[in-house]
Parts: sequence; structure tokens; C-alpha cells
Amino acid sequence: MKSGHIRLHLVHEVLKSKQVQLGQRKMDEKLKQYRESINNIDAALVFMLAERFKVTQAVGEYKAKNSLPPADGAREQEQIARLRQLASDANLDPEFSEKFLRFIIDEVIRHHERIRSEG
Amino acid sequence: MKSGHIRLHLVHEVLKSKQVQLGQRKMDEKLKQYRESINNIDAALVFMLAERFKVTQAVGEYKAKNSLPPADGAREQEQIARLRQLASDANLDPEFSEKFLRFIIDEVIRHHERIRSEG
Repeated sequence: MKSGHIRLHLVHEVLKSKQVQLGQRKMDEKLKQYRESINNIDAALVFMLAERFKVTQAVGEYKAKNSLPPADGAREQEQIARLRQLASDANLDPEFSEKFLRFIIDEVIRHHERIRSEG
Repeated sequence: MKSGHIRLHLVHEVLKSKQVQLGQRKMDEKLKQYRESINNIDAALVFMLAERFKVTQAVGEYKAKNSLPPADGAREQEQIARLRQLASDANLDPEFSEKFLRFIIDEVIRHHERIRSEG
């Protein structure tokens, strides 16, 4: 009777440990799936950014050749307003979309100034 | 003879002004085309970012529910190394891709902390 009780306890412990393992595995699987999606999106973002810089590189060379200023305040305001609207449509924080554009434009202006100083 | 000379001069001035106008119009057209491409890419970036935050929102809720820490240093190092490689493949500055990921991750951690403090 005592050994039966111990055995029952052991079976219970083994089952519990299997459950924990299963829970852990399910949790890992779930996080893994999320991370795969994030990885796919990040690759898309990097390639989109590379394409964007290709265009702004062409703009920079064009502006330098035609002695146009690297920054254009009116154009930036237009871009910010447009992106805030798009962000809001996509349920993304408009403040963040503006910070994001500013982050990208700062990098573009650095590129343009480099082209200008090299040209 | 004098009036003929003036007329010639006027014709020349009109032609020059037409050329400038044409040059201006060609320049505007060229910049407009570049800007349309940038606008398209920015829309794609905003929608990609919105999708990324949807996934990280789910991760944040999942981590909060399972008492997992919001940040994961090992995962971040892995993401940075991967993005730098992708950036280099796409002819994008790897330093910039790392700054970009850091910018996004900082925003994600702010979201996660908000979920955690609200939960």
C-alpha cells in the first residue's frame, strides 16, 4: 500500500514534469513562430530601406549637380503629414511614424552632405 | 539694321527663357518621379512597421502573461548580426541597419513595459 502510494506519487511527478516540458515546448514554439514573422518583416524592411536609399542617393547626386539644397522643408512637412495619415490608417502610432521619418531623413541628409562635399 | 539687331536679341532672349523653363520643367519632372518612388516605399515601410508592431504586441502580451522579461539580450544580438548581414547583401550600410534595429527595439520595449504596467 505504501509502495503503491509512492508509485502513484512518482507517476504524478513524471506527468507533472511532462506537462511542464510540454508547456515549455509549446511556449518555445509560440515565441519561435513570432520571431520568424519578425525576422521576415525585418528582412523586408532592410530591403525596402536599401531601395529607398538608392532613390535618395540618386536625388542627392541630382541635387548636387543642379546646386539644389540637400534639405527641403516644405517637402518634409508634406511627407510627415502623409506618413502620419498612413500610420493612422494602419493603426500605427502617428508620433512614432514621424520619429521614424525624421530618423531616416537625418540619415539621407548625412548622405547628401557627403555627396556634396565629395562632388 | 539696328532694329533688326534688337529683334534678334529678343528672339535669343525668348529662346533662352524657353530653355530655362524647359530645363526647370524637366528638373521638376525628374524630382517628382523620384519623390513618387520615395512615397511608395515609405507607404510600404509604414505598413510593414505596423505589421511588425502587431507581432511584437502579441509577443509583449505573451511575455507578460508568462512572466518573461521584456528584453532578451541574446535574441537582440542574433537579430543585429542577421540584419547586418542582410544590409550588407543589399548594399546598405550595416552600421545604419544596426542603428535602425536599435531604434525599433527601443520602441518595442517601451510598448512591452506599457503592457506590463497596464497588465
